[in-house]
Amino acid sequence: MSDSGSTVGLRPFHAMEILGLAKALEAEGRDICHLEVGEPSAPPAPKVLEAVAAALPDPQKYTHAKGQIELREALTQYYREQHGVEVEPNDIMVTMGSSSGFILAFLGAFQRGARIAVTRPGYPAYLNAINALGLHAVEIPLSAARGWRLSSADIEAAYAREPFEGLLFASPANPTGAAVDRAGLTGIVATCRRLGVQLISDEIYHGLDFRGPSVSALEESRDVIVINSFSKYYCMTGWRIGWMVLPPALVRRVEMLQQNLFISAPTLSQIAGRVALGERAYGEAQKARYAENRAVLTAGLAALGFGVGGEPDGAFYAYADVGRFTNDALAFCRDMLERAGVAATPGVDFDRSGGERFVRFSYAGSRQTLEQALERMERFLPR
Amino acid sequence: MSDSGSTVGLRPFHAMEILGLAKALEAEGRDICHLEVGEPSAPPAPKVLEAVAAALPDPQKYTHAKGQIELREALTQYYREQHGVEVEPNDIMVTMGSSSGFILAFLGAFQRGARIAVTRPGYPAYLNAINALGLHAVEIPLSAARGWRLSSADIEAAYAREPFEGLLFASPANPTGAAVDRAGLTGIVATCRRLGVQLISDEIYHGLDFRGPSVSALEESRDVIVINSFSKYYCMTGWRIGWMVLPPALVRRVEMLQQNLFISAPTLSQIAGRVALGERAYGEAQKARYAENRAVLTAGLAALGFGVGGEPDGAFYAYADVGRFTNDALAFCRDMLERAGVAATPGVDFDRSGGERFVRFSYAGSRQTLEQALERMERFLPR
Repeated sequence: MSDSGSTVGLRPFHAMEILGLAKALEAEGRDICHLEVGEPSAPPAPKVLEAVAAALPDPQKYTHAKGQIELREALTQYYREQHGVEVEPNDIMVTMGSSSGFILAFLGAFQRGARIAVTRPGYPAYLNAINALGLHAVEIPLSAARGWRLSSADIEAAYAREPFEGLLFASPANPTGAAVDRAGLTGIVATCRRLGVQLISDEIYHGLDFRGPSVSALEESRDVIVINSFSKYYCMTGWRIGWMVLPPALVRRVEMLQQNLFISAPTLSQIAGRVALGERAYGEAQKARYAENRAVLTAGLAALGFGVGGEPDGAFYAYADVGRFTNDALAFCRDMLERAGVAATPGVDFDRSGGERFVRFSYAGSRQTLEQALERMERFLPR
Repeated sequence: MSDSGSTVGLRPFHAMEILGLAKALEAEGRDICHLEVGEPSAPPAPKVLEAVAAALPDPQKYTHAKGQIELREALTQYYREQHGVEVEPNDIMVTMGSSSGFILAFLGAFQRGARIAVTRPGYPAYLNAINALGLHAVEIPLSAARGWRLSSADIEAAYAREPFEGLLFASPANPTGAAVDRAGLTGIVATCRRLGVQLISDEIYHGLDFRGPSVSALEESRDVIVINSFSKYYCMTGWRIGWMVLPPALVRRVEMLQQNLFISAPTLSQIAGRVALGERAYGEAQKARYAENRAVLTAGLAALGFGVGGEPDGAFYAYADVGRFTNDALAFCRDMLERAGVAATPGVDFDRSGGERFVRFSYAGSRQTLEQALERMERFLPR
């Protein structure tokens, strides 16, 4: 975490190396099962596409920096209906996926050099973005034994070792699928409040909780920064559209940052997002498909000797212990791709210290792909 | 330019205040001539919309972090045909408008705390983004007497006062429309090379040079960072799509930053951009319209007593001296909006020290709007 250069400490995604290798093999005519990519294979709901097609002939101009008022009002309704909380359209910022939301949160809520805690394992862009923007990351280790779920005790122990000003965490999480329940979230919010830590709740996998309705940190507090996106539940990764909900005291600063750093989010994607919010039946149908896939993949991996520790709570990932086969997950993933035609992401992307023993499998694709991947892995793995 | 907080020194766009006021007046039933917005009123070319409509049913997934290879190859062809230079697709990064290109350039090419020179007047997001990202801005004052054009002598004089590691400048420029010719650009590139200054050439208004073909800094050097966008010439502001061309030594760092900070640019907008590059006849038709508007506005403003100093070189802005009427451009713009129904942008957005005497008028809209605005101003202004 050196501070000497803007990009010192940056690390590439190994997932990208695997993806590049997979594409090279496909160019040679090989058939590859893609379990490395964390994105839905379906397009957005039909009504979303209809609305976009209807809007296409209009000039798609810059919108208000915060986003179109119609979208922000629809998000207000979303929070009322899904979470029973009142959020003013004025406190919502429409962003370019969750990605620009993180940048706005980091630059808007913290002084330069501030320490932001993140979980290990976790989404690798967290660490890299924190570092690139002149902040410092503090890692909170999680354990498979406790289902990779973040607890208040984890936060307190990490804070006692090295205090921090912010905590960024996701539920459900990437790469583990771990989700905290309401009691867990209540504890996390209360602990952050007590320690004076600004909580950033990454709710990008909301809607994809398999154990119950997703609980927003906004149900516990208005002092949190919530980041969300249309990428996952709404099948809109390449549309680059998301949103954040801000504590009122931060709205003006973040709006000025948005004006200067991004101007506004893509206009057609804003139109798409507004319609997508009303198409929850489509989202639920996708979720039902992931739920089936989850069962197939978890049972299949366990039967092959992977350590999976039960079905993950949410999202569309299984984070599997490959310690029985290797202590070098990257080499394992390369080998599995080349010899078996199955692409998955090595754990070192998500955990720089303990990830050598883990591999992330995405089950966002089709059931057929999953079943074929399991068959191929059975032939590939040592008996 | 204090360093004590991430957003210290951030200033809002007064253009946004004017726009908000204009919208409030429209809500009351008033008719407003919008000369404050720097964006084309036309949609992109018809073939662009056809291509997007055809692609809509497909899942629009994340693309390669650098952008779709088809778009980058089309950009290679663009540089060959328009500028006679060879640029590898590998050295091109597709970005979310020029906005994310600036972030990637600042974080990718400079150490934290580095000094970046920008012109005064200039695009206000330059200063604010530099400041928000932990860099320091050094302003190079330009003068109306020399057509607001940046010269090698300006750079040398500023460097002698306070050395800097980077120079970011645009030709044609916002808010003045000033453009340097080939000899001017050659001098600027040579001066930067001699001083060891990394040049960032903002070419977002390329294609909208009225005095001759736009000259890219890439024609002079491969050590420059070029930032461009589909927003202006291709009428795609709300599509949030642009690109940068990088010196080969910076490609890997900037690619890692893109992966972590943005993932990839909007996929539909990438498809749109690829088609737009082939539709130059459409762009030229827009340019011809702006050229007519430029003549109407320049003559009209001069007749009313504004100081316009001849027709601007390019882009679609006139930066007019309002010293005959006021020494408070913001108050003047508010007053002109409320009493005459004409919206324009006060110079203080572009020049924090000398902008009180200037107002930016955009002529990207329709000729009818311009003529109506001039009539209204004639009634509004003191005789």
